[in-house]
Amino acid sequence: MDICAGIDIGGTNTVIGLVDERGEVLCQRILDTKKFPDPEVFVAQAKAMIDDCLNDCSRENPALKGIGIGAPNGNYYTGCIEFAPNMPWKGVVQLAELFRSRMNVKTTLTNDANAAALGEMLFGGARGMQNFVVITLGTGLGSGFVVNGEVLYGHDGFAGELGHVIAVRDGRLCGCGRRGCLETYASASGIVRTMREWLDNSAQPSPLRSLPDDELSSKTIAEHASKGDPIAMEVVDYTAKTLGRALADMVCITSPEAIFLYGGLAQAGSLLIVPTKNYMEENLLNIFRNKIEILPSQLTSTAAVLGAAALAWKHV
Amino acid sequence: MDICAGIDIGGTNTVIGLVDERGEVLCQRILDTKKFPDPEVFVAQAKAMIDDCLNDCSRENPALKGIGIGAPNGNYYTGCIEFAPNMPWKGVVQLAELFRSRMNVKTTLTNDANAAALGEMLFGGARGMQNFVVITLGTGLGSGFVVNGEVLYGHDGFAGELGHVIAVRDGRLCGCGRRGCLETYASASGIVRTMREWLDNSAQPSPLRSLPDDELSSKTIAEHASKGDPIAMEVVDYTAKTLGRALADMVCITSPEAIFLYGGLAQAGSLLIVPTKNYMEENLLNIFRNKIEILPSQLTSTAAVLGAAALAWKHV
Repeated sequence: MDICAGIDIGGTNTVIGLVDERGEVLCQRILDTKKFPDPEVFVAQAKAMIDDCLNDCSRENPALKGIGIGAPNGNYYTGCIEFAPNMPWKGVVQLAELFRSRMNVKTTLTNDANAAALGEMLFGGARGMQNFVVITLGTGLGSGFVVNGEVLYGHDGFAGELGHVIAVRDGRLCGCGRRGCLETYASASGIVRTMREWLDNSAQPSPLRSLPDDELSSKTIAEHASKGDPIAMEVVDYTAKTLGRALADMVCITSPEAIFLYGGLAQAGSLLIVPTKNYMEENLLNIFRNKIEILPSQLTSTAAVLGAAALAWKHV
Repeated sequence: MDICAGIDIGGTNTVIGLVDERGEVLCQRILDTKKFPDPEVFVAQAKAMIDDCLNDCSRENPALKGIGIGAPNGNYYTGCIEFAPNMPWKGVVQLAELFRSRMNVKTTLTNDANAAALGEMLFGGARGMQNFVVITLGTGLGSGFVVNGEVLYGHDGFAGELGHVIAVRDGRLCGCGRRGCLETYASASGIVRTMREWLDNSAQPSPLRSLPDDELSSKTIAEHASKGDPIAMEVVDYTAKTLGRALADMVCITSPEAIFLYGGLAQAGSLLIVPTKNYMEENLLNIFRNKIEILPSQLTSTAAVLGAAALAWKHV
């Protein structure tokens, strides 16, 4: 039977899965991305895992028909990972071509947020939607736009860099070299930066002051905010305000039906979603008010692999 | 032979034209929009003009197959003009339905900026492009986005309201009721507001001070800037900076190949385009730098009708 592989590449882990035509994950393996500074060695190891999965697979005569990859800074048009700041590979890596030549099957690559959007559309909360956005709130802020039922790649494959719209003119220094990008405020690392700044600039007591530096995370901030710690609540509110305002501007351009939040910071759930929605509504042009839902993603880690596999199935 | 009508509705004039399948305008009439506070009377008059055109038409047995309309606040999905601030008709006007019932042909409506984008794609500077934006710099700032070769309507038909992204937080009061919208700075009326503010707040001599109030326009400002008047040059530069920054943010979302400027303020040509491009580049995320052209629209007034007619031909 025909099978596709979905590969979800992250700066820390890479998840590889075999997926059948109905979206069932038949077999899954995890790879430690950081251990492979040489992308050729990474691909060799991924191949070994896929072969291993094919042997293990419960189906008769599994035939690998295609590979789909979601990766940070992945470019759909070129099949390359280009200048990804949090990956072990520097510069431009022709990852789709490396897989294609080694595995001898069609390989399609896109960025991780676009793969998440495909996953959300096929197997998550966006089933049946033609216009929506998935926002990944991890170390950075990624976004995958679906318009007219298709992923928006733009002219060069790089559309959907919502994390780099300017939220605060001349604001925080971003990994991209510019200042004030949305992701320096609204992301798992952005909320930690806000908390550190606010703790430094106030004398207000907070149990967060006594946490070791490496335990200050979007998770601990959300926990303390939900327990009523005033400074943590203010930090969540500020994050929601910055994100909500940027979403109101984004809606003016693409007018989506729904916005899905995914990733580390999104796990704060309604604690973040409710004020973000309020700030977005407060800032929306009247024609867009009370129309757009902000929802938690329904993707699990399996679904990121499903999103990548969906890309492969689309091209087989 | 089969013919479609293209109708370009503006707050002041409405242009009606008959267009054949190859994009030739066979006949054209102009209607004074402001004289028709009742949309039903407007449609009756437009019908008389179309019938008149069909009689005048040089082709044998012209058969009207469809009508396409471009109008401010026109909604593609509903066929309505909805709450257009500069039109004689208030609230929601079911204009496509009015034409359909009276003329008995399929009628399709979209907003004027989307019609301009269709015209630019079929008959203007965007021929062959799959991802671009047309920005109309008139009384307001309108925008029509083409992605993957299709007009971006969004979930509710209102995508492409770039004029209402916030350029200056808590800035100028906008016709939409909010503050700081891009169109209050970057439009034919926005640049006049800037000039008035700057003349009021400085004592710098300028020949623009002696102009009667109703002669201060984007045209006279551009003329004086090109003659070297320092305050006019600064005002153009500020307008370009505000627009260039907003374009840099927009590019992050849709990644277009080119941005076309159309309408009154765009007639300033390279005087506006060169600094706008420089400010956009200065603010772009590195992956987008030196890729995106800002170009003057190649649409004439005829082409606005052609854009509306293109919409009709698409649906016949």
